[in-house]
Amino acid sequence: MTTPEKGARAGSTLFDRIGLLYTGDPGREEIEQAALVVEDGRVAWTGPAGRAPDADERVDVEGRCVIPGFVDSHAHLVFAGDRTAEFTARMSGERYTAGGIRTTVAATRAASDDLLAERTSRLVAEMLAQGTTTVEIKSGYGLSVDDERRCLRIARGFTEETTYLGAHVVPPDAASADDYVRTVTGEMLRACAPYARWVDVFCERGAFDADQTREILTAGIKAGLRARLHANQLGPGPGAAIAAELGAASADHCTHLSDADVEALSSAGVVATLLPGAEFSTRSPYPDARRLLEAGVTVALATDCNPGSSFTSSMPFCVALAVREMGMTPLEALRAATMGGARALRRTDVGTLRTGARADLVVLEAPSYVHLAYRPGVPLVAQVWQGGRRQA
Amino acid sequence: MTTPEKGARAGSTLFDRIGLLYTGDPGREEIEQAALVVEDGRVAWTGPAGRAPDADERVDVEGRCVIPGFVDSHAHLVFAGDRTAEFTARMSGERYTAGGIRTTVAATRAASDDLLAERTSRLVAEMLAQGTTTVEIKSGYGLSVDDERRCLRIARGFTEETTYLGAHVVPPDAASADDYVRTVTGEMLRACAPYARWVDVFCERGAFDADQTREILTAGIKAGLRARLHANQLGPGPGAAIAAELGAASADHCTHLSDADVEALSSAGVVATLLPGAEFSTRSPYPDARRLLEAGVTVALATDCNPGSSFTSSMPFCVALAVREMGMTPLEALRAATMGGARALRRTDVGTLRTGARADLVVLEAPSYVHLAYRPGVPLVAQVWQGGRRQA
Ligand SMILES: [Zn+2]
Ligand SMILES: [Zn+2]
Repeated sequence: MTTPEKGARAGSTLFDRIGLLYTGDPGREEIEQAALVVEDGRVAWTGPAGRAPDADERVDVEGRCVIPGFVDSHAHLVFAGDRTAEFTARMSGERYTAGGIRTTVAATRAASDDLLAERTSRLVAEMLAQGTTTVEIKSGYGLSVDDERRCLRIARGFTEETTYLGAHVVPPDAASADDYVRTVTGEMLRACAPYARWVDVFCERGAFDADQTREILTAGIKAGLRARLHANQLGPGPGAAIAAELGAASADHCTHLSDADVEALSSAGVVATLLPGAEFSTRSPYPDARRLLEAGVTVALATDCNPGSSFTSSMPFCVALAVREMGMTPLEALRAATMGGARALRRTDVGTLRTGARADLVVLEAPSYVHLAYRPGVPLVAQVWQGGRRQA
Repeated sequence: MTTPEKGARAGSTLFDRIGLLYTGDPGREEIEQAALVVEDGRVAWTGPAGRAPDADERVDVEGRCVIPGFVDSHAHLVFAGDRTAEFTARMSGERYTAGGIRTTVAATRAASDDLLAERTSRLVAEMLAQGTTTVEIKSGYGLSVDDERRCLRIARGFTEETTYLGAHVVPPDAASADDYVRTVTGEMLRACAPYARWVDVFCERGAFDADQTREILTAGIKAGLRARLHANQLGPGPGAAIAAELGAASADHCTHLSDADVEALSSAGVVATLLPGAEFSTRSPYPDARRLLEAGVTVALATDCNPGSSFTSSMPFCVALAVREMGMTPLEALRAATMGGARALRRTDVGTLRTGARADLVVLEAPSYVHLAYRPGVPLVAQVWQGGRRQA
């Protein structure tokens, strides 16, 4: 047996001498002194080291911790332009509003397809190097029929999990908000649906109200898309309730929830996707993950990677924030960053290392996943494997 | 001209096409579209790209930002053992006290020199990969004459900036606190002074009081060491005032300062070294950097890297926290992480890229140092050069 090279795909590979394996399988979520076998890009076996079946290749994990690749279920990666100065101004006291999105829209419209694809590619590679093996990518910086379509077409080159977010803000060149909603639910939807799996709305004061949100999501669902939603980020609002009402897969942000909102998410099985990078980078109060978990809501963690309110691409950083700021234990935060993200995308093949799952796995330069929170900011991702192939 | 390989040292090297150069030189702190020439391991020239003198080798920085290597002036790197479970318990609500230090002391005493050196080496390498080119290393997990001496001897293999911290806590095997202070100021000091540049005391309730602190620092100074101090971390206390009174180079932590403390630090020219990783990992309130800066105090940022209260080794993470949590602008935080750390160690040859400084420099995968705060958690260190040699 030999160790496969980067990019290689063996017939079967034994990951041996795993100090701690987090499988995400509720029956035996963690296995100490473990091994894992990959066949044809899938997890074929997990169990105690020393009892593993033979394999063509062997990777000696040398006592490190192995976890599923992170599932980042909320990211805005197709954009151009620079908003560094806006960040600096905000850190000197200016408040975050949705208005800055328009800066990025202007730059994105002016950019070539090649530039947009190259910048998206860089961010996806940066994420992969930090252990993210599944990423959702939204449109939302085009805001014209052609620009939304091309942003989604570019996104589709990097992931199946593409989200149509024509309803990010009303662009300055729209005749009126009502007119723009007609475009978003009509011509733009028809142009974008072939490239999207999801429909999303920024339901927030200054963006889209309850009626507009319902109308846009309903139109998207009719066009064959599934719903997810930006909800209750900057203040209380109708987003979470609408997510429950329309059976959205996920309500994202959830920073300002009423008791009724929490109850509605729980009853409807809507995942609450928390985005602590946004609170970090806008100096806002963090959502209360503990309250959601205690109400039986499935919590996901995602980066919200975008140039305005959260330019981190780091899931480990989000895990550390979730533990420091949102009342999660390291185990709960890891679950949210893997299985939680998968549920937010209604996926069962990723975010877990149970038998049959895609062999997306991360070897940490640490004996435990606790170190993701215990050693914040430290690049702990030693190896990344995607579908059984080594990527980083 | 060619680009030198990792580990190579050219006679002279031109760093060309620097998008933004942060020199740290007050006269021209930042230069856009810059170049920098290194000769014999020192900065020989900085200025606008296109006007640089010839050099033997050329590094094309491709528009990225170049900053001085970080100076991490407070770290506890020589230890053994594991305190992951203590961290998990703390994140479930237990409070941080100085008591956990004793766990690490027991493991450190039981470890071989080789193990301690190997673990220290890993942390120093991890720091270097994150842009830290100067690091201070303290003893303080030996707490016996022999163990403190061997920890400092090991530390000295990695840095000139070694600090004798026999006065970390009173070890459980001491006959009494008074008896231990006698050892720290007597036999232990004589054994350690040859391997140390600095003397330090953990001046805190549960560790050492004002009189003990004065006695230990004074003894250290008489033995030829310079003073620095753990002060005012867990609550108000006499540490900052003593640092000013005895002319310490730095008072570290400074989380709980009175107005008189701030005034004393300012008047005496004591650097306030802030350690936001410790507040992050103990869920404590952050120090107010703004108040210190406005009082004219020089602020440094450091990691406090240690297994109990702050196991981060990441200066970029500390910069991001300083901006989010402590009222610093990105520029102030960068200054504190470079020049501030150098002043805390009374060094003028590092933490700056003015002519004559040691050629310790970091190429960021970003157009500006602002991204250290704007893109938290993302590994942005693309290249690290130390004394003109590429290290990472
Ligand atoms: Zn978003
Ligand atoms: Zn310390």
